[in-house]
Amino acid sequence: VVVTPFSGAVLGVDWGTTNRRVFRIEGSTVTTTERDPLGVTGIARNGYPAEVAAIRARFGDLPMLLAGMVGSNIGWRSVPYVAAPLGMAALAGGLSWIDERTAIVPGVSIATVGRADVMRGEEVQVLGAVAAGLVPPDALVCQPGTHCKWVTLAGGEILDFTTAMTGELFALLRAHGLLSPQLDAEVTAGSAFREGVDAGKARDLAASLFGIRAAKLLGRRDDADAASYLSGLLIGSDVTARLTRPGDVYILADPALGELYAIALAENGRTAHVVDSHAAFVAGIVAIGKLIA
Amino acid sequence: VVVTPFSGAVLGVDWGTTNRRVFRIEGSTVTTTERDPLGVTGIARNGYPAEVAAIRARFGDLPMLLAGMVGSNIGWRSVPYVAAPLGMAALAGGLSWIDERTAIVPGVSIATVGRADVMRGEEVQVLGAVAAGLVPPDALVCQPGTHCKWVTLAGGEILDFTTAMTGELFALLRAHGLLSPQLDAEVTAGSAFREGVDAGKARDLAASLFGIRAAKLLGRRDDADAASYLSGLLIGSDVTARLTRPGDVYILADPALGELYAIALAENGRTAHVVDSHAAFVAGIVAIGKLIA
Repeated sequence: VVVTPFSGAVLGVDWGTTNRRVFRIEGSTVTTTERDPLGVTGIARNGYPAEVAAIRARFGDLPMLLAGMVGSNIGWRSVPYVAAPLGMAALAGGLSWIDERTAIVPGVSIATVGRADVMRGEEVQVLGAVAAGLVPPDALVCQPGTHCKWVTLAGGEILDFTTAMTGELFALLRAHGLLSPQLDAEVTAGSAFREGVDAGKARDLAASLFGIRAAKLLGRRDDADAASYLSGLLIGSDVTARLTRPGDVYILADPALGELYAIALAENGRTAHVVDSHAAFVAGIVAIGKLIA
Repeated sequence: VVVTPFSGAVLGVDWGTTNRRVFRIEGSTVTTTERDPLGVTGIARNGYPAEVAAIRARFGDLPMLLAGMVGSNIGWRSVPYVAAPLGMAALAGGLSWIDERTAIVPGVSIATVGRADVMRGEEVQVLGAVAAGLVPPDALVCQPGTHCKWVTLAGGEILDFTTAMTGELFALLRAHGLLSPQLDAEVTAGSAFREGVDAGKARDLAASLFGIRAAKLLGRRDDADAASYLSGLLIGSDVTARLTRPGDVYILADPALGELYAIALAENGRTAHVVDSHAAFVAGIVAIGKLIA
């Protein structure tokens, strides 16, 4: 029996565009985890060996799996996408090895006649959630965020997925343009959010957005509610467009954003289950570790 | 017979947010017109009397009708909206008089249970187009721009209208965010624009937008075509959402933008007629002038 580096404790890094989170995992248990703002946009192209050494100095001199934008053309190295449909074995087979105990997980692509889509990092969460029994092998999974992923699982594999720029549109509209001065308030999961979800069912975003301005000018809605309404409108449009098949929806998210999507799904007649996205990521790293151990 | 100031030559000013256009009109003919970047955002609240005097010094010491954002809370004075449905007489009745030969045309509002919308300036164009026979009295009228207006005319009156933030979304996405670096090229009315229009039929904007990124990453579309595709997507979504009634569509626009909307309408099975928006505005000023003369 060859004992490989990945048969014991490992480090898993969810390395995104603006943040990263490091997990030290022993067995299937997280013993230490830490988030910092050193996403790939904060690291020089040749800075990764030193970053990885620094992570090992802090979290333990252990084998390491890196996932997310670290494997993109703005990260450490551009790791080719693996085409869907795919399961955990194909993901492990596509690892890009830096050295014998350091590897980057590939992203996933869809490239059919009518559609093109990509993900990097979410594949570890969603297949990890299946491996850990947090999500059934046949399900619709929602991963909210700047670029919200909607994944159709079939037989435990990623069959298809769609990315919606929902979070980015919210951020753009809040920071720039006509509506920006109305959108200072915090988003809350109240009646304004639900009104927005309801408006989102019309899937007429450009007109519904101007309605936010008109509602202010005509005294219809207080600006304290405008951000919540906008959030509901964008999440509601996203949800309404995605429900082409029946069944429950599994949301991999932090609790606050997960709750907003769960409400929007309920308003569209769906039952939603919020699953902790960190637990799903860790389960994915553990599952890949087992496949290469 | 009382001879009023408005029985002879008049000045009409289309005074928008970032630009204004002055027309000197004799009878129904424009003898001089000029556009400059002195929209209301470029003029201090107390600067309007001097601006109006300067216009008269350049174009003639004539009675003057002002329309557009000059009548808003960021303009000279906030002129109350007149509620639709309304025709030219109600518009003339809602004039806000600065002095006996200077008046601001009111904007129009919709405020029913389910909908709130406003316009300022477009009402002069659309009712002017009807008055001049450029548009039939029962028609769907499209006024493209930063905030595209779609007006349902019935019996020569504005029955209903919807504003879509189509142009503003294009500008926001071009200037900020993930897609911005892909969107430098000029928009052209070619196959990429038509592909975008086709994608817009799905009315799934947030997902179609991310598709622009994915198409680049997977080598599906050159960035030279991305801006045209985005324009098609946004205009196509707008058009598709608006075609709830059969019939031809009348576009009040400058020729370039009018052509893009005409193509999108044709791709959705509609015949479009492009009408010069300056001629429509002038006809509106002439018609109001007659009503108050």
